[in-house]
Amino acid sequence: MGRAKKTVKKTSKKAQLFYFFGDSKTEGNGQMKDLLGGKGANLAEMSRIGIPVPPGFTISTLVFRQFYENGMKLNREVDQQMENYLKKVEKSMKAGFGDPQNPLLVSVRSGAKFSMPGMMDTILNIGLNDKTVQGLIDKSKNSRFAYDCYRRLLQMFGNVVMGIDKALFEHIIQKKKDAKKIKLDTSLSIDDLKDMIEKFKKLIKEKAGEEFPQNPLKQLQLARDAVFRSWNSPRAITYRRQYRISSDLGTAVNIQAMVFGNLGDHSLTGVGFTRNPSTGEKHLYGEYLTNAQGEDVVAGIRTPKPIDELKKAMPEVYKQLLKVTEKLEKHYRDLQDFEFTVQERKLYMLQTRSGKRTAQAAVKIAVDMVKEKLISTEEALKRISPEQINQLLHPRIDPKAQLNVIAKGLPASPGAARGKVVFKSEDATRLSEAGEKVILVRQETNPDDIAGMIASQGILTARGGMTSHAAVVARGMGKPCIVGCESIRVNEEKKQFFVGGVMVRERENITLNGSTGEVILGTAPLIEPELSGEFAEFMRWSDKVRKLGVRANADTPADAMKAIKFGAEGIGLCRTEHMFFAKERLPIVQEMILARTREEREAILEDLLPFQKSDFKAIFEIMRGLPVTIRTLDPPLHEFLPKKEELLLEIATLKANPEETEKLKAKELLLQRVEELAEFNPMLGHRGCRLGITFPEITKMQAKAIFDAACEIARGGKPVIPEVMIPLVGKVEELKNQKEIVIKQAEESMKKYKVKIKYHVGTMIEVPRAALTADEIATEAEFFSFGTNDLTQMTFGFSRDDSGKFLNYYIEHGILPEDPFVSIDEKGVGQLIEMAFKKGRAMRKDLKVGICGEHGGDPDSIVFSHKVGLDYVSCSPYRVPVARLAAAQAVVGKGTTVTE
Amino acid sequence: MGRAKKTVKKTSKKAQLFYFFGDSKTEGNGQMKDLLGGKGANLAEMSRIGIPVPPGFTISTLVFRQFYENGMKLNREVDQQMENYLKKVEKSMKAGFGDPQNPLLVSVRSGAKFSMPGMMDTILNIGLNDKTVQGLIDKSKNSRFAYDCYRRLLQMFGNVVMGIDKALFEHIIQKKKDAKKIKLDTSLSIDDLKDMIEKFKKLIKEKAGEEFPQNPLKQLQLARDAVFRSWNSPRAITYRRQYRISSDLGTAVNIQAMVFGNLGDHSLTGVGFTRNPSTGEKHLYGEYLTNAQGEDVVAGIRTPKPIDELKKAMPEVYKQLLKVTEKLEKHYRDLQDFEFTVQERKLYMLQTRSGKRTAQAAVKIAVDMVKEKLISTEEALKRISPEQINQLLHPRIDPKAQLNVIAKGLPASPGAARGKVVFKSEDATRLSEAGEKVILVRQETNPDDIAGMIASQGILTARGGMTSHAAVVARGMGKPCIVGCESIRVNEEKKQFFVGGVMVRERENITLNGSTGEVILGTAPLIEPELSGEFAEFMRWSDKVRKLGVRANADTPADAMKAIKFGAEGIGLCRTEHMFFAKERLPIVQEMILARTREEREAILEDLLPFQKSDFKAIFEIMRGLPVTIRTLDPPLHEFLPKKEELLLEIATLKANPEETEKLKAKELLLQRVEELAEFNPMLGHRGCRLGITFPEITKMQAKAIFDAACEIARGGKPVIPEVMIPLVGKVEELKNQKEIVIKQAEESMKKYKVKIKYHVGTMIEVPRAALTADEIATEAEFFSFGTNDLTQMTFGFSRDDSGKFLNYYIEHGILPEDPFVSIDEKGVGQLIEMAFKKGRAMRKDLKVGICGEHGGDPDSIVFSHKVGLDYVSCSPYRVPVARLAAAQAVVGKGTTVTE
Repeated sequence: MGRAKKTVKKTSKKAQLFYFFGDSKTEGNGQMKDLLGGKGANLAEMSRIGIPVPPGFTISTLVFRQFYENGMKLNREVDQQMENYLKKVEKSMKAGFGDPQNPLLVSVRSGAKFSMPGMMDTILNIGLNDKTVQGLIDKSKNSRFAYDCYRRLLQMFGNVVMGIDKALFEHIIQKKKDAKKIKLDTSLSIDDLKDMIEKFKKLIKEKAGEEFPQNPLKQLQLARDAVFRSWNSPRAITYRRQYRISSDLGTAVNIQAMVFGNLGDHSLTGVGFTRNPSTGEKHLYGEYLTNAQGEDVVAGIRTPKPIDELKKAMPEVYKQLLKVTEKLEKHYRDLQDFEFTVQERKLYMLQTRSGKRTAQAAVKIAVDMVKEKLISTEEALKRISPEQINQLLHPRIDPKAQLNVIAKGLPASPGAARGKVVFKSEDATRLSEAGEKVILVRQETNPDDIAGMIASQGILTARGGMTSHAAVVARGMGKPCIVGCESIRVNEEKKQFFVGGVMVRERENITLNGSTGEVILGTAPLIEPELSGEFAEFMRWSDKVRKLGVRANADTPADAMKAIKFGAEGIGLCRTEHMFFAKERLPIVQEMILARTREEREAILEDLLPFQKSDFKAIFEIMRGLPVTIRTLDPPLHEFLPKKEELLLEIATLKANPEETEKLKAKELLLQRVEELAEFNPMLGHRGCRLGITFPEITKMQAKAIFDAACEIARGGKPVIPEVMIPLVGKVEELKNQKEIVIKQAEESMKKYKVKIKYHVGTMIEVPRAALTADEIATEAEFFSFGTNDLTQMTFGFSRDDSGKFLNYYIEHGILPEDPFVSIDEKGVGQLIEMAFKKGRAMRKDLKVGICGEHGGDPDSIVFSHKVGLDYVSCSPYRVPVARLAAAQAVVGKGTTVTE
Repeated sequence: MGRAKKTVKKTSKKAQLFYFFGDSKTEGNGQMKDLLGGKGANLAEMSRIGIPVPPGFTISTLVFRQFYENGMKLNREVDQQMENYLKKVEKSMKAGFGDPQNPLLVSVRSGAKFSMPGMMDTILNIGLNDKTVQGLIDKSKNSRFAYDCYRRLLQMFGNVVMGIDKALFEHIIQKKKDAKKIKLDTSLSIDDLKDMIEKFKKLIKEKAGEEFPQNPLKQLQLARDAVFRSWNSPRAITYRRQYRISSDLGTAVNIQAMVFGNLGDHSLTGVGFTRNPSTGEKHLYGEYLTNAQGEDVVAGIRTPKPIDELKKAMPEVYKQLLKVTEKLEKHYRDLQDFEFTVQERKLYMLQTRSGKRTAQAAVKIAVDMVKEKLISTEEALKRISPEQINQLLHPRIDPKAQLNVIAKGLPASPGAARGKVVFKSEDATRLSEAGEKVILVRQETNPDDIAGMIASQGILTARGGMTSHAAVVARGMGKPCIVGCESIRVNEEKKQFFVGGVMVRERENITLNGSTGEVILGTAPLIEPELSGEFAEFMRWSDKVRKLGVRANADTPADAMKAIKFGAEGIGLCRTEHMFFAKERLPIVQEMILARTREEREAILEDLLPFQKSDFKAIFEIMRGLPVTIRTLDPPLHEFLPKKEELLLEIATLKANPEETEKLKAKELLLQRVEELAEFNPMLGHRGCRLGITFPEITKMQAKAIFDAACEIARGGKPVIPEVMIPLVGKVEELKNQKEIVIKQAEESMKKYKVKIKYHVGTMIEVPRAALTADEIATEAEFFSFGTNDLTQMTFGFSRDDSGKFLNYYIEHGILPEDPFVSIDEKGVGQLIEMAFKKGRAMRKDLKVGICGEHGGDPDSIVFSHKVGLDYVSCSPYRVPVARLAAAQAVVGKGTTVTE
């Protein structure tokens, strides 16, 4: 833009009223958008570099200004100049404007500096009249086509220039069709068209009080003036107001020769891409139809031929097309999607623009273009959107497949999953163990469903938003997931769900498209992802550029493996509680919760210790000395116990059986504890460090597991960096309390194993108060990790699990621009993050600061994190490559990407 | 302090080693605490103004310094000076130190600049030996007393000076008592005492290796040195460290003549107050015992006589006492609680200090003293604590009554309540309608209990904290309430509760003391509060001084009446939902919630409109043009529906009855809606403006009720200022959305009634994000009202209803200094308040800002509000006078108050 402005200033001294384009005589260029408008500048640019576009000229915005200053008309001199320019077009096209034998037809199109699609008027086929229509018939050998062109001109001209209601023309057409009992315009006969032409002329005379001008020059002048006037049509004014486009800019008008691909066997029309938009392979790709117009290609009545065949059919034209499109690609430095017409062996490029492509093609093209020295690596990095990277990481449904889509929900975790429907976590586990692939379908999920989710290929829930339990856990696992699929009615008891008229029973096959939210009946064909050479190379460029570190949230050794595979530089969040839900551990955890004394609890925790320790050890080993941030127990204890309703049911059943008194007693005890632990707002309840403080023995056990594991690794001579993270701290005293326990345990372990290891103790910043008093907290914390999920919940006062009731409404009604659980709310939550970062760093210069909430994998939030100056983001393993690219784009900037 | 320091500097040039006090020769004064210590300075001050204190002298901290610098001993010259001072005492007392006929006895007491109660040593009866004890017998005609004094000297001296374990002395006493089979020391005979004296001497000789010094001077020197040394005893060092008292200060030592009220019929001892500490009436108040020592008065073995009788018995002494105590009161400008002894017709004041008093007396005394020109009104305002004011507003349990206290909980809402125990809200209503006074006892309360709470005299719950539902609602209603009374086990089904061994059944009488948290069995006698002339006058002074406005939180016309009665300057929070819970309205509200379409809902809201309107009208009328801030609907809708468990039970019952299918269907529908509306974290769910935005028809109805009511009042020529407050706003767009509805309705109502009224639209600031973006919000808000309950919940991430599980632990373990729901957490929540205030005012100069959370009635939080610069606080009507005083004290400062 800056460059554009300068150029305009330079050229403005010798600014012309008209600018020719086409052939070698092109007068403008791509920078002159102020004077030529966007479209005019582009046409000039293409012509300038030798692309054969149908010739024409642009009436500059200077003329527009004269028109308005001069009382909505132009001087004779200006008309004279225009006629001169028209002559250049006639010469170039070897046809005469108004010549009955060889008529030149032109289009008249508006073209303002900023695109205002559909807001202003266009008139095609200017130059046709009762006489020249015969010339067109002769040229095209197609009376139907020629009369239809004339009919269209009358209609457009009558409406745009002469101000006659569109509906009146449509009415005549409709009457004709009714009379002939036909439905499509294309079924109208030549006589019908001729009759309608007469009726249209009569209508114009009647309504406008004057005849349709047979003089082509008159047509052109009137059309031009009408386009100028349309700048101030109510809809154009409204549009400019909405998009804040200045009304002073005015519009240019483009007069361009019309070319026809249907003038016989030496004419044709086609569309193409400079490279394969699906695979990215470098070869001309597209199709064409001989003796046809553009719409015929699109309509699909005749089957077009692959562009390769043009090589044989018209080798020179093909050669020229190849040359021209290569030039286009070189000039625009991107894959081009172009339209062309060959009129009597002469090639005209009608349009070119950046072509849409698949994610896979996007990466290949970007990498290839760097190798071809067409673009820099920085430019390549801008070309791919992080979401495209995401697509590449998951198997996809074959885009060519015919699918039976039965419902659509929120695309919570991308990729495709296929399997048999199950409705209970136990069924998922059982069937999966029996070798079946299953899809877990539930009203909503909760921590009890973890095992079932692990056992499933994908998860579908009727309730919940993008950050509901199912969504978060599934993304963490890299499993496709669709949530909030409100149209399905799940009956977990009867093991079936309904949608529309369809009932899907247990063990029926469905496919989930986690990237689109589509639920597909049956087994859709999949395409495996290729993290090929180009992908790897592209990611290496990202890593070179980015300043932000990228870590993964990983709770298990399996997650850690994925983290390494996807290029994570450490673990930013290891949620120890997820280790508690495993089958053989949960009963011990429950026993621990039921313990009535500290001593009892300590004894049971001893049983849990080996499990945690072996997990940590495996994770440390996999991470090979990269930092591993382990969070101490976070969720409220009742999450580990059965639901009250379930217990009540079990108790009722047991009561009926007099032999089960022992079991009954146990269940009743459990129920009592469940009731004691029940909370009104568990999110704001007894969880996080509040647990570790009131039950110090839990923190102690966890610290022992961490440091015993780390010391065993270190004793084996391998590097290890544990970072212990205390959750939900709001006051420095909370951290101090927990840190003391951790340090004491670290010292003990190191003494026991006779090794020294480097370790850190830090805290989550997820309670607003922690951010507000980050300076105090930094006196104890060696690192901060923003828990942006909870921080967003508390800063907004939004319960993630409940906000579905109003959040969608808010976004739809513009109260919120987007879901703050997806992208960080910079003004509110972001303000707290910046504040905490500054206060923390002011207190402790080497404070390490990262983000480990869901936002750590969101591109916009990553850019924000970069801007604030954080050290790293941490996200689910599957988002690591996404984050690596987003972090690179935070440095080089985001480009416009054209996606499939 | 500043003044004291200056005086010390002035006098330090001529600082003496010793300072005499007593008679007219007093050398020190009350300011010289650095040199004389606190006690020494006070003794000097009393003497200086002519109060007859037993004469003596203070060994200054200069001597202390010499003692330490000189290797823990003093020069002979210093001893010589001390002897000279001792001579002055002998002269004053007309007795000789060591004189066998007329012995002078002295006490040796430490006295540091800052009081360190119990940390250092005291030795009484110095000067007694085998000979002088005979003189004391002659003087007192009481051998038992004299030997007991000697025995005590040996014991104290042996322990403090000669370092012998206290237990060894106690052991001898115990053996003696065991041998004689007696329990009390007082049962020991003279011979027993004499025997013990010998045994003590032997013990001293044995353990210390030297005899108890018979030389009184030696006793005195050794005792003095021991007191000096005790400055560095481990417990004193620990104490100083804890209270940050510098170890360099050192201590002075006070040597004071001992006087005896038991030297015959012309001797006596007594205690008294300069005014009646119970009523505040101005007359000498107290009692005395002839021929007795101080401990006899306290022991209660003989019945003391009222001080008035001294007038007849010893008119001169009485006259002197009157004069002396008047002088004391004038000098200390406060009610004095004094001890005195008359030794052979000579009056000695032993102690004087500000007297403890009831709240009622405190107000009367403060007001009287202003009238007597003893103190300024500012001083008077400092004298009463806001909590004392609180006590005055509620009937109190007669402090003289004998009570059967069966349990103690948290004093959630002050005052006394008596009535029959009920366990269900319905029972409360039914019995109350039948004319009974009832106390509602529940596990915990919820919004369903509102009717029952209204019908009750007081509320007792087993669960919940100071800001639980019961506590907040009860305080709002001004009803006594005890919560978190964990020792009672409530069985709501069986209608009984247990505590200790006691079972209390429905309809048994209990009394609640909401000021202390005591639960009393039976009907305790009450005292009605007197908001007398003095009280009113005192409150007027508060109003003159304070800068902060004080409004009331009032939901009903009855509340509004109370608000006016207690001096509120408007309503700061009118919670419209409380109007929804009334018996005839709740079914309509439920119907509205069950409505499936907007149209249906709108129709039902029409039925609710007249109720709301008539309430608002009544409130506006009562408030006579004072601003009334009405908050639109805030709680989640499920609060208006029955509990899930209850419904399940009802449905089970209905299912058994085939005739009830209609009812069953209705209940099942209700259950379905209850399940739909269920939320994981209702606190952060679909409530506040989120309701008003997704159901705009609710806001519309409420606005219509408000403005129709206001316009009807205005049309009647009366002033009215409605302020509509939108709750739970976190983003300015939310406020904008609701404001538009409100303004539109206001315009419509004004048009309909053809009147113009002044009104404002503003918002609660209770979501952290609102505080963070207060500048944006102030573009729409005309006022802010901090909802500090929710703001505290979200800033800390503490659910008020669940925090009991860890909050007490936190406070007990020093992780939190106090409950942030009681006093604003200035560092965190307060930071947000200040930030919001500054940002809001920067955007809108005339932004009105107040607090309407529970903190609005908390004195510390009121001082904070004043400091920040808020316009007003709003609290429950019963706290309005408390807030008025606290706001005044925010200006004049808080004094030390001596409460009952």
